[in-house]
Amino acid sequence: MESQLNEVGHTVVSDGCKFVRQILARIGDKWTVLIVMQLSAGPRRFNELRKQIGGVSQRMLTRSLRALERDGLITRTVFATNPPSVEYQLTELGRSLEDPIQRLGQWAVGNRDAIESAREKYDAENKE
Amino acid sequence: MESQLNEVGHTVVSDGCKFVRQILARIGDKWTVLIVMQLSAGPRRFNELRKQIGGVSQRMLTRSLRALERDGLITRTVFATNPPSVEYQLTELGRSLEDPIQRLGQWAVGNRDAIESAREKYDAENKE
Repeated sequence: MESQLNEVGHTVVSDGCKFVRQILARIGDKWTVLIVMQLSAGPRRFNELRKQIGGVSQRMLTRSLRALERDGLITRTVFATNPPSVEYQLTELGRSLEDPIQRLGQWAVGNRDAIESAREKYDAENKE
Repeated sequence: MESQLNEVGHTVVSDGCKFVRQILARIGDKWTVLIVMQLSAGPRRFNELRKQIGGVSQRMLTRSLRALERDGLITRTVFATNPPSVEYQLTELGRSLEDPIQRLGQWAVGNRDAIESAREKYDAENKE
């Protein structure tokens, strides 16, 4: 990693850059954000999550949930019902991610108009 | 969008879900995060950025910078030097993203050990 940042607060890039990059890619994954937001409200079953998030395939949701479980952000509990039901829940570590994710989401909502205006302007200027 | 969240602070999912999802995917892009962090320290030329970020191809960096410019988060200024040089700088909108991104980065650094332990445990338990 060639990055050398000397301002306080920017050390996150130089310290374990590859790892942080990888984590940010995971967090930034659109399904991850939406899963964490849904689980903030309480435990959810797979099909509930899928319905609430909307637009996610079974395969992608399964993959995202497995990655979150591997990272220790959620737990997966199987109940011996018939058919068996599976419930997902944020761990303590997962709950600590709620605040940074909420801030990003709030930023996105709060700046939606500005971003859409910028896009229209850019597209008009780069039409040809 | 089928999501219905009724807790305060979770309205980001129901309001313009597709848009927010798309923005979060953009922000979460690992290069975006690293570009915004680098530009926090001041304007940068393309090659400086590429060197400081490390591990990014010319094509991917170009693509990420163009997307950030289109969203109004950075400006691209061409100087009539020989050869011409191009400088990237955060806009006011881009600077407003620094804080949420720093928080995510700090979360990733602060929880690195916990995540790595969780992964080792998961991989050991799911070996077969």
